[in-house]
Amino acid sequence: MRNEAGGWGQGAGQGSSPDSSPEPPGPAAVSSYSERELIARIHERLPPAPPWILVGIGDDAAVVEPERNRVEVLSVDALVEGVHFDRAFTPPDAIGHRALAVNLSDLAAMGASPRLALVSMALPPALPMADFEGIADGLTALAARHRVQIVGGNLTRSPGPLMIDITVVGTVKRRQALTRAGARAGDKLYVSGTIGAAAAGLRVLRSRTSLVAGRTSEVASGHSRPATSDSRLATGDLRLVTAYLLPQPRVHLGVHLARNRAAAACIDLSDGLADGLHQIAGASGVGVTVDADALPIDPATRSVLEQSGQDPVAAALAGGDDYELLIAVRPRARRRLAARRDSTPLTLIGACTAERGVWLRSDRGVEPIGRDGFSHFR
Amino acid sequence: MRNEAGGWGQGAGQGSSPDSSPEPPGPAAVSSYSERELIARIHERLPPAPPWILVGIGDDAAVVEPERNRVEVLSVDALVEGVHFDRAFTPPDAIGHRALAVNLSDLAAMGASPRLALVSMALPPALPMADFEGIADGLTALAARHRVQIVGGNLTRSPGPLMIDITVVGTVKRRQALTRAGARAGDKLYVSGTIGAAAAGLRVLRSRTSLVAGRTSEVASGHSRPATSDSRLATGDLRLVTAYLLPQPRVHLGVHLARNRAAAACIDLSDGLADGLHQIAGASGVGVTVDADALPIDPATRSVLEQSGQDPVAAALAGGDDYELLIAVRPRARRRLAARRDSTPLTLIGACTAERGVWLRSDRGVEPIGRDGFSHFR
Repeated sequence: MRNEAGGWGQGAGQGSSPDSSPEPPGPAAVSSYSERELIARIHERLPPAPPWILVGIGDDAAVVEPERNRVEVLSVDALVEGVHFDRAFTPPDAIGHRALAVNLSDLAAMGASPRLALVSMALPPALPMADFEGIADGLTALAARHRVQIVGGNLTRSPGPLMIDITVVGTVKRRQALTRAGARAGDKLYVSGTIGAAAAGLRVLRSRTSLVAGRTSEVASGHSRPATSDSRLATGDLRLVTAYLLPQPRVHLGVHLARNRAAAACIDLSDGLADGLHQIAGASGVGVTVDADALPIDPATRSVLEQSGQDPVAAALAGGDDYELLIAVRPRARRRLAARRDSTPLTLIGACTAERGVWLRSDRGVEPIGRDGFSHFR
Repeated sequence: MRNEAGGWGQGAGQGSSPDSSPEPPGPAAVSSYSERELIARIHERLPPAPPWILVGIGDDAAVVEPERNRVEVLSVDALVEGVHFDRAFTPPDAIGHRALAVNLSDLAAMGASPRLALVSMALPPALPMADFEGIADGLTALAARHRVQIVGGNLTRSPGPLMIDITVVGTVKRRQALTRAGARAGDKLYVSGTIGAAAAGLRVLRSRTSLVAGRTSEVASGHSRPATSDSRLATGDLRLVTAYLLPQPRVHLGVHLARNRAAAACIDLSDGLADGLHQIAGASGVGVTVDADALPIDPATRSVLEQSGQDPVAAALAGGDDYELLIAVRPRARRRLAARRDSTPLTLIGACTAERGVWLRSDRGVEPIGRDGFSHFR
């Protein structure tokens, strides 16, 4: 069964009314291909299955051997066109990349090593086949980088937006899983990488929708297909656009934090730093104070946000999509942070306090930080 | 962390552009509620988490202890409005029920005992809150019946159709997992329950879209809210409608087959019997012959299909959504089929042959059966 592209998980039926109306065949859109053929396009991009995958793509379900002496960490996250990305300025490979990256970021926040993924896609029939292949490229390239085995999935037609829903499974030693709940008063707060860059990158992209073209590499190089000279991106902007389109989940950092018991609490910043601070404060039963001047907002981000009339600190607090980690660290564990091979920069931004509340300290004094983590509905 | 409804898996960001435009609050639609509040509505319907769930709903990811001496079986399947169901005649609780049932059916086909699920939903903002609650009712009721723990999920807005994507994880003893690939020439073929009933039920529903009303129980009782006397369903039709709306995945049968090594190969019929026969034949490298007269098509199904001008055998072969199991059984293992507590009827419908091909034997002679399992795209 292994490595057969036939089944990819069984379909959910189709109202007993197959879309069997013959469509004119053509190579342009996914509607010209069977589910089987589309699955084969993903399957051919995957490495050979390791021995712990007993039944892979091609049966009603995948069968895998659990990893010994580890507990399992599971997460699911969806990318919906028109909600989480805009096809007008998100190249297909970036869509595939981001769909997996957001999930790997959740595993990183738990300190888990990623192991496998199941990929469910709902595709508009008119989606160009080249775009589908691009999505598969982005997805499988990131999976390969983090040795995530894609063991199954589902493909269906969407009468509306493109949606990619990915479930990931990782593993961690039983007592090493990181949660949001372990912070105590006196813990220091660190954030990885920089914040606000993805939000700024999105602003750059939105102001340059002429950059619709092909692959992220072309966009990032400033050489998109219908390139006019003024669609070239400045170097600083390139980094921001890349931060938005191709976020790098902090998998190695998360694994290091768990193994070395360096973090007391951890969360990823997919919904923004403000939300992350509130989540850790709420789950751990502590207060939090952050120094505005300490926030790692790089100059290019500052510049884009200021040009668009935003306060960089406020925007960096509220902006999501950074997929960095927010980490609470016991004072005595700070050395364990330093002694790591992973080179992700960590910045001390504040501390946990006994007094409740989420506060920002700046030259304007101390102000409360609103939750501001966006709500998907309200 | 456990049992906190806060996080339900982290969001996938929202393009750094939260839908923060204030909407007029009101109890009618899901857009009046935060993701947190909606998750709480699901969470309050769940039983207390068992001890093997170390971190449940509320963190970046769930953490669970694997089951000892078992391998894991994973599957994902999506229900998309307008593709897999029509809200006009599928009550909300039936949508929730079916979304999980199609997944449990995949586990049953592998002989796995279901263990946990992650639920990802994309909801149109105008979805009535009562419908959301109905979906949660149908989903959690079926989960409770099969002791499936919902350990996490994701909720997002959909600018298009309602989608529910569920990943299930089950377990089975290592050498007992059923695949499609184990059949040999000489094996007998059995099918559980009846076939065609769901297809017939869908026809009944489509011819009576006046039955839009509330809960499945009302539809099934023939007492839908805007009930007129001619919208009452005949008893036979009720069973068909129930077969379509509330399919019962053959979980106990699948587990029995695996434990007793009664099945050489197994598949569920979500994509139709014709497709199932082709899948087993292809994966096992055998031919298959089925007797038309032996197919378990009940009189009510025959009657509905004939009235709609269809050949009942052809329609039952092609129709999906039955979620029955197709099983290949070695001649010497047939006693193991008989000695089971599970009362699901099994019908001998044919046999596997050395000569390749998928054939139907009837009073018209022997004819090839087309794959006819619908393609989601072509």
